[in-house]
Amino acid sequence: MGTVPQVKPLRRSFIRFPTQVEFGAGTLKRLGEFTADYGKKAFCLFDPFFKGSEAAQTAMDALHAVGIETYECYNVHPNPRAGDIDDVTAECKEQNCDFVVSMGGGGTVDIGKAVAFLVTNGRGAWDYTTKENQFYYSIEEKPLPFVAIPTTAGTGSEATIYSVVNNPDIQRKCTIRSFELYPKLAIIDPELMLDIPPLLTALTGIDTFAHAFESYTNKNATLFSKMVAMESMRLFAENIIPCVEDGKNLEARANMAFSSFLGGLCIAHSPTTIPHIIGQCLSGWVDAPHGGSLAVCLAQVIRWTLPAGQKEFAEIARVMDPKLSAVSDEEAAKALPEIVDALFVRIMGNQRVTMKTYGMDETRADEFATFIFNNYQGDMSNYLRVPTPDELKQIIQECL
Amino acid sequence: MGTVPQVKPLRRSFIRFPTQVEFGAGTLKRLGEFTADYGKKAFCLFDPFFKGSEAAQTAMDALHAVGIETYECYNVHPNPRAGDIDDVTAECKEQNCDFVVSMGGGGTVDIGKAVAFLVTNGRGAWDYTTKENQFYYSIEEKPLPFVAIPTTAGTGSEATIYSVVNNPDIQRKCTIRSFELYPKLAIIDPELMLDIPPLLTALTGIDTFAHAFESYTNKNATLFSKMVAMESMRLFAENIIPCVEDGKNLEARANMAFSSFLGGLCIAHSPTTIPHIIGQCLSGWVDAPHGGSLAVCLAQVIRWTLPAGQKEFAEIARVMDPKLSAVSDEEAAKALPEIVDALFVRIMGNQRVTMKTYGMDETRADEFATFIFNNYQGDMSNYLRVPTPDELKQIIQECL
Repeated sequence: MGTVPQVKPLRRSFIRFPTQVEFGAGTLKRLGEFTADYGKKAFCLFDPFFKGSEAAQTAMDALHAVGIETYECYNVHPNPRAGDIDDVTAECKEQNCDFVVSMGGGGTVDIGKAVAFLVTNGRGAWDYTTKENQFYYSIEEKPLPFVAIPTTAGTGSEATIYSVVNNPDIQRKCTIRSFELYPKLAIIDPELMLDIPPLLTALTGIDTFAHAFESYTNKNATLFSKMVAMESMRLFAENIIPCVEDGKNLEARANMAFSSFLGGLCIAHSPTTIPHIIGQCLSGWVDAPHGGSLAVCLAQVIRWTLPAGQKEFAEIARVMDPKLSAVSDEEAAKALPEIVDALFVRIMGNQRVTMKTYGMDETRADEFATFIFNNYQGDMSNYLRVPTPDELKQIIQECL
Repeated sequence: MGTVPQVKPLRRSFIRFPTQVEFGAGTLKRLGEFTADYGKKAFCLFDPFFKGSEAAQTAMDALHAVGIETYECYNVHPNPRAGDIDDVTAECKEQNCDFVVSMGGGGTVDIGKAVAFLVTNGRGAWDYTTKENQFYYSIEEKPLPFVAIPTTAGTGSEATIYSVVNNPDIQRKCTIRSFELYPKLAIIDPELMLDIPPLLTALTGIDTFAHAFESYTNKNATLFSKMVAMESMRLFAENIIPCVEDGKNLEARANMAFSSFLGGLCIAHSPTTIPHIIGQCLSGWVDAPHGGSLAVCLAQVIRWTLPAGQKEFAEIARVMDPKLSAVSDEEAAKALPEIVDALFVRIMGNQRVTMKTYGMDETRADEFATFIFNNYQGDMSNYLRVPTPDELKQIIQECL
């Protein structure tokens, strides 16, 4: 560890998305067809939920059919720490696998992404996480081929350059960011999503909406990232209620799976801003699920932002409620926080979640706001309106 | 030539687009930054129009600045035959270049794409063109890195897997199709498009609209290709008149450049159908520019298709004229051919072009329709409505 880390700053292209994407009901069965030349042995990192499942068998049968040997690993922590990821990496190395296949939620896909490059790059996961004003290591060696098979519609991790690493010791989620983290192949099969319970469907769906909303309202959004983000929000608005209310609705699940993918694709090009910063910090401080941590602050951030962002908010509001095409930008924009609030309440089982729901209370709110401001000032500067420390305190108070 | 060609059928992915895209006014200046590790010597295939131009100098200065040697070639035929492409390939080989940079219209980009793979694959261009029911050769060796710099907004060739090869001896345009034809890098700089004259702006713009329209109405269109096609049509409808009427409008040019790129991206995933078949055959029979050959048949094909495709046509009509949001699908769909007709007349200098404008006459019309049917029956089957031989004759009559 004596050498000084070489950090290359991330320079985003207008479009850079080398991942091959295969989409549609039944696509999992064709896994072998797409990976036949990836190597002889696959490290199958599956969510523990899939142990002994038909889906796991389908994936492995497809690999065996083209002569690929498989090693199953279910050692997936829902909010993995660097050490958890390093353990899985050691297992993958020991098994001499040629490529990595992750099937599961965003956490599982994130771990697989990290394992695929850690196997060839040598250091531990924590060394590669981005830290403001601190050195960290770049990925120098080509990762193993990585296949992402998302089984929730939320993180869009199959389309991003990010892998999240938890560090409860410093109350933070940190991120590894690199174009080397794009999967080589993503298999998006909505049949894998038919059994997701309503609450998880809602929580992951809110994450998708947050990705698209934050990417769209990022100051650095482009013609491409905005197209992708807008279509993601349109599909979310049209399909999240059907998915929550009738999980077996294959068409709605397919549309939400694509919405989630687009949410990932847009943040890979124009990243998240304030709601994700607040949400990730909240999950570091209290035990809030990722989607819940966003649900408690999205409408509040939008409300505080007005009248800045009126044009963008009006565009989003009209996609979520086409009837607003007839009204002025001002009126449409003002409607947005109410639309978001009402939709979230409905899909969360007619319950309003707040920061208090997850254990944050008034006495720590100001300290929490200061913590956010001190650690993420830089990332917040990409949002349409940049809060002062006092304004951030006020936003957090509104979220309680 | 004794061996039997190995043809791998093209299996399209839901998304497969490895090209790095850099977009925006002034991006050409940064060419060297993106290509610094592509090799030591660049084969600069520029449209003859750029000989001695500031744009050519900017491109070469950018390469020289990072130590890359350049060889200039202006040997570009507007409708290249296989032999023309083979000549340029020989020149590139002789100069021992490491990568190819094409700057110009769709034809120039197409030639550069072909040269980049012909240099490493050995045979002549004609051997790789797709022929129905006939053998042709696959691209087996990795092409040289290829950089596309489009200077018109039309073909979207910077985002496609196609290269067109003309063969007037058999009255046909043929196509090389392969994922190996995707550029490694596309530089889309709308500043290069400010001097395109109104008629060329209109003709190339019509090509863009045709790509997006045909991709959207292809039976195999997907959630992804439809998103891309629809945004392409929206941007075309909003920006083509400003581009024709005030060529120096940088924002409109940028939007049309992106529309054209999206037109290419969608046909790489869900290809063109009947209008392009008719148009390409027309250009083989008479001396019609590509955009003109599409302008003479698009509205006629739409009119003949109704009431099939009513849903798709209504969606397109509403993007081109948002006022149609208030009317029924039937009414909106019926308005589409008139919208297209009126827009084309306006941008073509208030002139209606027909097949007669380009030299096709009644006496050859039926023979022409039969020729199309016999040669392209397979490709037509992807369209919303598949014509019989007699129906095709009727469509051609309407286009005269």
